[in-house]
Amino acid sequence: MAAPRRMVIIGGDATGMSAASRARRLKGPDELEITAFERSSFASYSACGIPYWVGGVVDGPEALIARTPEEHRARDIDLRLRTEVTAIETGRQRVRVRDLDHPGPGAERWVGYDDLVIATGARPLRPEIPGIDAQGVYGVQTLDDGRALAESLGERAEGVRAVVVGAGYIGVEMAEALRRRGCHVTVVERDEQPMSTLDPDMGRLVHETMGEFGIETVTGAEVTEVRTGDDGRVRAVCTKDGEYPADLVVLGLGVRPETTLAREAGLPLGSSGGLLTDLAMRVRGREDIWAGGDCVEVLDLVSGRSRHVALGTHANKHGQVIGTNVGGGYATFPGVVGTAVSKICELEIARTGLLEAEARAAGLQFVTVTTESTSRSGYYPGARSMTVKMLAERRTGRLLGVQIVGREGAGKRVDVAAVALTAGMTVERMTSLDLGYAPPFSPVWDPVLVAARRAAAEVSRDLRGR
Amino acid sequence: MAAPRRMVIIGGDATGMSAASRARRLKGPDELEITAFERSSFASYSACGIPYWVGGVVDGPEALIARTPEEHRARDIDLRLRTEVTAIETGRQRVRVRDLDHPGPGAERWVGYDDLVIATGARPLRPEIPGIDAQGVYGVQTLDDGRALAESLGERAEGVRAVVVGAGYIGVEMAEALRRRGCHVTVVERDEQPMSTLDPDMGRLVHETMGEFGIETVTGAEVTEVRTGDDGRVRAVCTKDGEYPADLVVLGLGVRPETTLAREAGLPLGSSGGLLTDLAMRVRGREDIWAGGDCVEVLDLVSGRSRHVALGTHANKHGQVIGTNVGGGYATFPGVVGTAVSKICELEIARTGLLEAEARAAGLQFVTVTTESTSRSGYYPGARSMTVKMLAERRTGRLLGVQIVGREGAGKRVDVAAVALTAGMTVERMTSLDLGYAPPFSPVWDPVLVAARRAAAEVSRDLRGR
Repeated sequence: MAAPRRMVIIGGDATGMSAASRARRLKGPDELEITAFERSSFASYSACGIPYWVGGVVDGPEALIARTPEEHRARDIDLRLRTEVTAIETGRQRVRVRDLDHPGPGAERWVGYDDLVIATGARPLRPEIPGIDAQGVYGVQTLDDGRALAESLGERAEGVRAVVVGAGYIGVEMAEALRRRGCHVTVVERDEQPMSTLDPDMGRLVHETMGEFGIETVTGAEVTEVRTGDDGRVRAVCTKDGEYPADLVVLGLGVRPETTLAREAGLPLGSSGGLLTDLAMRVRGREDIWAGGDCVEVLDLVSGRSRHVALGTHANKHGQVIGTNVGGGYATFPGVVGTAVSKICELEIARTGLLEAEARAAGLQFVTVTTESTSRSGYYPGARSMTVKMLAERRTGRLLGVQIVGREGAGKRVDVAAVALTAGMTVERMTSLDLGYAPPFSPVWDPVLVAARRAAAEVSRDLRGR
Repeated sequence: MAAPRRMVIIGGDATGMSAASRARRLKGPDELEITAFERSSFASYSACGIPYWVGGVVDGPEALIARTPEEHRARDIDLRLRTEVTAIETGRQRVRVRDLDHPGPGAERWVGYDDLVIATGARPLRPEIPGIDAQGVYGVQTLDDGRALAESLGERAEGVRAVVVGAGYIGVEMAEALRRRGCHVTVVERDEQPMSTLDPDMGRLVHETMGEFGIETVTGAEVTEVRTGDDGRVRAVCTKDGEYPADLVVLGLGVRPETTLAREAGLPLGSSGGLLTDLAMRVRGREDIWAGGDCVEVLDLVSGRSRHVALGTHANKHGQVIGTNVGGGYATFPGVVGTAVSKICELEIARTGLLEAEARAAGLQFVTVTTESTSRSGYYPGARSMTVKMLAERRTGRLLGVQIVGREGAGKRVDVAAVALTAGMTVERMTSLDLGYAPPFSPVWDPVLVAARRAAAEVSRDLRGR
């Protein structure tokens, strides 16, 4: 009998362990040996759950772990925690690994592979400013980060002054979490509006509402320093125009692909620094190396460009595709349309497709409409208002993007637009979509249809030269 | 100046008044004269809201009226309530109308039209059994019906024994309403499971849950008689096998197109009795007659057949299309995919596309999968389980239908499948749909994607001959 093929995985989170599980389902240990190296203390966890752990909404970290190392090992997946890959040698098909718990001579060794999966994830942005490494400054990327922050808050969160740097998804989710724990929360954002994943006019709606939730938001403010006391602990966050007292600081500035190893190995990277792959998630030009999750760029199906999108749902899909292909099957990941949904307290925030600036950068011309509607029939209790903004291409009327800001029932409505984008629908076609209607679920014209009607009218008006 | 064209509308509810409003927006009174005849006391109302009015969830009937007669008249739409059209004379382009409040000689007159809109809606099914017209038997089709039932319940609903005949959408919604008012509720259904708009295996889930809500459900039971007392009031509902004491009876047996006038005028009807139209909602073969809403058949885009679907959301879209076309614009209604959503107490029930029996009747062969999943990440508070059943065509893998039964967050997920059906997507393509993900909104694999993955695997297995 031939020796089993060797599948080696760098990174034991969503992509890596999904790939491992899927490949194992297709091939037994006689045919495929699977080894996964993870440098942190945790594998197969939901980093997206960290804000809810910190906020006391869920018990961490156990609840956030989808599958324990023991469960993986029981399926003949050799998962090594606290083990870092320090180099990839593509020519000799091997990686160098280091045991972080037993440093010193003998801690490093080479491991050969037939199929290598790079699932190294992303690293949070840290501005290079004085004090950024002070005690009391926290990231929220790994469960180790989450634990540090949760332990720091301990029982004494009430009245703690917390400054969140960055008002993107992670920033607003952390702001909610800290507010929920009773902290005084200030969010400091460089752009003119929070949520730069929305157009500024939609971001303004988020800004206005954050105040209602008792969260102070400072915009147009670049952080220049984290001021510390004599004890080395955080005292304040400084911008050009002001200073915000802080007992703790949370960095929510977004992430970049973690591709140091890949770059050193000479693998192809895109403009965001993410690995470039083909549709089967094989690293471009390499037969035996696969990559997925937060360390790759993906095709944006609306703009036709490659982009970096760090989201657990994509990471899981990539793992599924890689595992299928390594396991001898066939699967592809066709790309994304740029869907994201989040909430801050009761406000739901969602987008799919392109923002105005993104559409312009892609060379597209478009019309926009912004409509107000409700989540349920106006007369039904609990009907809440929502704002839907829609972009449609000039002349063709093709849907280009949707942004939604509203209360309960708003966020997931973006899925309708996500599917319509995937199908390349025009806004005119969308006006007759057969969406579920009953008074507790929707007005007789669903908010997405209201926007589509207005957008279709606007496309016509534009065609007629107004 | 030429005399204005005359638009005459039969039926002043969703289709009729939407058509009127839309046409008026496109053409002023100098160009278009608009007259609408409505035989009941109300126009432009949400019949779908009646269960919530009866249940005391909303205040009726005012809350259910989208636009008052005065508002219509202020826009030069001549709405005549309590005025019935008794005949259509297509050759002479005129209708005969009767003033119901001033009977006797002179109550009838002829009114000429250039464009006629037939929006006569539907009539509830009433089995021809003894006692069906007894005092205490209520329909739920019009606001007049709703008022009669609401007044009958008055303040004394607690403990009243109510029997609902029929466990379709209207039946279960009325069961919830009456339960909410404190009635003892028994639902009697002819089929083996409630919700015959679902496959029986999914209907069984509804059946099991209705008991939890304190609603007794009797299935496989055809009503043979409504037994009355000496005072002529309802006493019980009788089936072949039993007798169910009743202080009041609600008929929730569904509806049929109300097309008596159209049939007498020789207009073309389909097998369900609904008017047949072209895609612009013009009655087939007629240049000057339009029809829409509950009185027409529509194209089912999945089966390719014509069918009757009585839903306010379609009625509004039809009105919009007719109004645009009569007003000199151009619009079409391409058809439906069969989406419907409803709730009974906390249970959400949704479907789109074809049931197993419907797919078979259309000559389609298919595979089915049924999956369990949750509305949010499993660790996030409020995550509730839901069951998703999916039908996909053999060989091609084209999505044919989805049914969902679950708690909060289940129902509207059917919209994703509705758009995918409209786009003719395969279940394989659906597995990579970019749906909104964040722990409060969805597990990392949305329930619809979980079902699509399983369905795609099943299509492959079937192709390989298992």
